[in-house]
Amino acid sequence: MEQIPLDGLNQMDQRAFVGALGDIFERSPWIAATAWAERPFSNLNALHETMIAAVNGAGQERQLALITSHPDLAGKAAREGAITNDSKFEQTSAGLDRLSDSEFADFHRLNEAYRTKFGVPFIVCVRRHGKESILRQFEQRLANDRETELNTALSEIFRIAALRLDQRVLAPDRLKVHGRLSTHVLDTHSGAPAVGLAVELFEIASSGKALLVARATTNEAGRTDRPLIAERPIPIAEYDLRFAVGAYFAGRGAPVADPPFLGMVPIRFAVAEPEGHYHVPLLVTPWSYSTYRGS
Amino acid sequence: MEQIPLDGLNQMDQRAFVGALGDIFERSPWIAATAWAERPFSNLNALHETMIAAVNGAGQERQLALITSHPDLAGKAAREGAITNDSKFEQTSAGLDRLSDSEFADFHRLNEAYRTKFGVPFIVCVRRHGKESILRQFEQRLANDRETELNTALSEIFRIAALRLDQRVLAPDRLKVHGRLSTHVLDTHSGAPAVGLAVELFEIASSGKALLVARATTNEAGRTDRPLIAERPIPIAEYDLRFAVGAYFAGRGAPVADPPFLGMVPIRFAVAEPEGHYHVPLLVTPWSYSTYRGS
Amino acid sequence: MEQIPLDGLNQMDQRAFVGALGDIFERSPWIAATAWAERPFSNLNALHETMIAAVNGAGQERQLALITSHPDLAGKAAREGAITNDSKFEQTSAGLDRLSDSEFADFHRLNEAYRTKFGVPFIVCVRRHGKESILRQFEQRLANDRETELNTALSEIFRIAALRLDQRVLAPDRLKVHGRLSTHVLDTHSGAPAVGLAVELFEIASSGKALLVARATTNEAGRTDRPLIAERPIPIAEYDLRFAVGAYFAGRGAPVADPPFLGMVPIRFAVAEPEGHYHVPLLVTPWSYSTYRGS
Amino acid sequence: MEQIPLDGLNQMDQRAFVGALGDIFERSPWIAATAWAERPFSNLNALHETMIAAVNGAGQERQLALITSHPDLAGKAAREGAITNDSKFEQTSAGLDRLSDSEFADFHRLNEAYRTKFGVPFIVCVRRHGKESILRQFEQRLANDRETELNTALSEIFRIAALRLDQRVLAPDRLKVHGRLSTHVLDTHSGAPAVGLAVELFEIASSGKALLVARATTNEAGRTDRPLIAERPIPIAEYDLRFAVGAYFAGRGAPVADPPFLGMVPIRFAVAEPEGHYHVPLLVTPWSYSTYRGS
Repeated sequence: MEQIPLDGLNQMDQRAFVGALGDIFERSPWIAATAWAERPFSNLNALHETMIAAVNGAGQERQLALITSHPDLAGKAAREGAITNDSKFEQTSAGLDRLSDSEFADFHRLNEAYRTKFGVPFIVCVRRHGKESILRQFEQRLANDRETELNTALSEIFRIAALRLDQRVLAPDRLKVHGRLSTHVLDTHSGAPAVGLAVELFEIASSGKALLVARATTNEAGRTDRPLIAERPIPIAEYDLRFAVGAYFAGRGAPVADPPFLGMVPIRFAVAEPEGHYHVPLLVTPWSYSTYRGS
Repeated sequence: MEQIPLDGLNQMDQRAFVGALGDIFERSPWIAATAWAERPFSNLNALHETMIAAVNGAGQERQLALITSHPDLAGKAAREGAITNDSKFEQTSAGLDRLSDSEFADFHRLNEAYRTKFGVPFIVCVRRHGKESILRQFEQRLANDRETELNTALSEIFRIAALRLDQRVLAPDRLKVHGRLSTHVLDTHSGAPAVGLAVELFEIASSGKALLVARATTNEAGRTDRPLIAERPIPIAEYDLRFAVGAYFAGRGAPVADPPFLGMVPIRFAVAEPEGHYHVPLLVTPWSYSTYRGS
Repeated sequence: MEQIPLDGLNQMDQRAFVGALGDIFERSPWIAATAWAERPFSNLNALHETMIAAVNGAGQERQLALITSHPDLAGKAAREGAITNDSKFEQTSAGLDRLSDSEFADFHRLNEAYRTKFGVPFIVCVRRHGKESILRQFEQRLANDRETELNTALSEIFRIAALRLDQRVLAPDRLKVHGRLSTHVLDTHSGAPAVGLAVELFEIASSGKALLVARATTNEAGRTDRPLIAERPIPIAEYDLRFAVGAYFAGRGAPVADPPFLGMVPIRFAVAEPEGHYHVPLLVTPWSYSTYRGS
Repeated sequence: MEQIPLDGLNQMDQRAFVGALGDIFERSPWIAATAWAERPFSNLNALHETMIAAVNGAGQERQLALITSHPDLAGKAAREGAITNDSKFEQTSAGLDRLSDSEFADFHRLNEAYRTKFGVPFIVCVRRHGKESILRQFEQRLANDRETELNTALSEIFRIAALRLDQRVLAPDRLKVHGRLSTHVLDTHSGAPAVGLAVELFEIASSGKALLVARATTNEAGRTDRPLIAERPIPIAEYDLRFAVGAYFAGRGAPVADPPFLGMVPIRFAVAEPEGHYHVPLLVTPWSYSTYRGS
């Protein structure tokens, strides 16, 4: 979908404005309609805050209606395609459309338990989580009381709206919804950036199963041309960053053992702040390496 | 089996001597019988060299007989228990008694190809190799000519004999048949050895399958009470040394993220010198680590 | 002196052009006059190359005259102010105006020896060297033959001209005359950039004497706001980069010993490529640190 | 002086015993005489504790006499040789016999101020301190009240006695009076211990002045044959451990810059626990290094 300039939004009548932003909050165009009255918006953060204020000022009944407008995660409606396009994109991006039968059963059980206890669907901003992190959230939040959960549901709805809004509107500013995961390889054997070294990023399930997330080769600066993850939250999950160190040094004719002491070097780490900057470099010789969380 | 003091061997008559060392070379007691004449042996290396000299001086026919006395690796005889106890122990130690059907088929095919080309069984000192390294040896050596292979077979037989002899005889010296794999964890967050940190060593197949080799917990010095591998060759293979860094720092109350940036830290490396000393330490904080091949 | 836009130069008549660039080559305005005919210059590198071509095509006599137009380094003329402003700036920047009596004697002796052997003054682009590196150059080059030295003198003159030209002319491109020395401090104790850590850069004489070159404090990114050296060649010399690590960790309340294990951390290194990028970071906890040549 | 076996002490009559240990406490043979009654001593720690108990049980008057039996540090008596041999050895070992005039004046002033305030000489176990650390102790302790200082004086006397006793008596156990400072160089460029690398240890004054403490060359294991400091307390002070990295890599023909990026690598650190084990290793390539407090 094409981005709409903030200037254009500021000049729209209410009908056009709701046509443009009515689906930022799930099946709740009234929020855009309310926010419209506060035009013009000097920047995107002001627009987002105005929409949040519209929800916060709307009274408990409309808030409850907003919450119940959301579909179950990986639920029957999602399987049958009966959810909004935005929800579909979000659930797909978190892998919820590719569940095993046993995972589907887990989600089904937790959805039911959550609805039974709280009377509303479980809402989480799935773009900020890996599949296992969603399940952990589910189980942790089931232990809360209803008031806590209604507040948490609204917070998550505001995060979902922020991601949709940041994608939809072209403005001088951005919302703080993006993380960045990058790497850098220094060859301390030759004192220069490692050029042409293959890097792969995997998301690791607790079963040990590895899902390829990104693949790149280091450039002249020892960096990848683009960050491994950018322009989106980094899902809370465990990752494996794998560096083809053996092939790199063999290709340079560096003296190595047979088989080389270091072949594929894995760096295993977890992301806890989806909007954070994670720089995970490698300093490497054929016989040693270091890594750290940089920035 | 109880160890025999070298002094005792030096005082034996030929019959007792052959009774004690007749099986150091597979089904070839004549080698011990020949070596007996050179008593007394001042140390174990002298005894081993004398036995080697006996083989080298025996002429091609007896050497060929020695070679053909060896069983196939993972062959029919091994399956049916029709091999010497020493061979059984050695093949078991390399995992050759636990092959999958497809691995068994690989070994069968290579055994046949080798016998067809060279007229003798394939001989390798299996205690120096992981399963995949044995298969690589097989394929590399199939490309050799017959003279090279007969010489290689004798070299491997001398290695097998050295391992058996070092185990059998109690002497002031040892044969150079042992490697050592050790680790050490320094907590550079608190500037002290990491105490009580769980470590596991796995052998990694090219399929990614991990076989547990050793498990330990670091002591007051940040070391394991015993080396992870010692008193034997380190099989040529790829290894994963896994450090429970997340649990360690959580247990000390160090400030960490949730989930912690570093949970289980894997160090992936390969061993190329079975008789070498591999010291693979970890210097670690909750946010960084280094490793290197030490000594 | 204000920079002159390349466009403006391209539109000048010869007289104005020589007025603007006549002193790029020491006391040799004919080089600018010759180059003028090749206008317009699409960029600064083209202009520099055209001036070099003018010298190379001018014949040995004028080249020799160009060489002998240069003053002695730290010579009598410099002491008495009888040299061009450019030469004065360059010699001052290399510390040649602040020589001890013994250093002055060294320069005097080497100038005499060089003139005696080669009949021309010793020329080196002093902005690329520390004082001791100039003396080493002097001694190494005294061993050459005359032809080598005349060629070397021209090469150094082209480097001097490039630095003057890059400073004088505003163009879309730059000449490759600038190096960069930067640092970065990662606090791997807390997993974040070290903010507010004091850094000092010294040039170290072989006597051990330290001359302060730059002083800075790390910003929110753990970097200094500006590189420690930039927009000029990095003099070939030995450096000490000193990090106030003890004060930094004490200020954060990190648990340290008394006195702290690490107080002022010095990184001692040498620069060999004046036009190179030297990034010398520090990864540090109260009990450990690492550094490396990055880029 | 030859060591006396503990067994021998246990069998001595009181006269001989006091002859052997009468000077363990400065000019106070009555302490040995009192301790004698508690023979036999099963080990050296028991003997030391018995002597301490003798002092603690002796009443304030005799304790005060013990304290005032000690000479001033770097005082007139020391200059004129009018102190016990033990005191002389101890003061010399801390460099108090080689003070500059200004340092001597500092000591004189502080001695006077201390005696004036507390009526007793300032006592500190000088073997545990560098010269500057003694001055810091002096100034810190001048701020205490008299009771604190009398207790501190006794504690320091017990430390002095422990060092004398550990040196004098040959026993199965040792007193905890010894620290150890060691190093280890790993060449992570070639994956092996750095052999033949020159190492120097200096004590650094706050003026920057460096005093050579030890000099060694690394052996086949990358270690020094003996610890740099052992069999004594490590004086509380700042140290510089200097590694001749440039010469080492040049000697091995490793590709380095000219001048090499790393020439002499200094590790600057402070010791705060004189009885601690400080292992300060270097992991180094021509372009990078790491160090840490190991153990």
